[in-house]
Amino acid sequence: MSTTHTYQVTGMTCGHCVAAVTREVESLDPVTAVRVELESGDVTVVSERPLTDEEIAGAVDEAGYQLA
Amino acid sequence: MSTTHTYQVTGMTCGHCVAAVTREVESLDPVTAVRVELESGDVTVVSERPLTDEEIAGAVDEAGYQLA
Repeated sequence: MSTTHTYQVTGMTCGHCVAAVTREVESLDPVTAVRVELESGDVTVVSERPLTDEEIAGAVDEAGYQLA
Repeated sequence: MSTTHTYQVTGMTCGHCVAAVTREVESLDPVTAVRVELESGDVTVVSERPLTDEEIAGAVDEAGYQLA
């Protein structure tokens, strides 16, 4: 079973930002896929179980951005 | 002897962009120092000899940006 959730991330301005967020969120153990849309800030995450708020916020923060 | 020249680069939006431009320009053989200012787009380059237009434009292009 997998679960899909879309988060809002603020502050991304370019492809490097997208890559940084993708990389950090992908590094979370339950995560199997990540898609980041620069224009909207949408970060869609497929994971083996729902992520906790701390997990996703921590990964986004690690990349240097914030959840909206 | 060293020479210092400031170029204008367009399209940089964040610290990742600054890092990419810095890295590519630094990789040019005659270059000994690079300072990139995000807000102004100023890229100040210290080099052992004046760079050719092709050298600096090539490095900036390699990073994914353009000279103004």
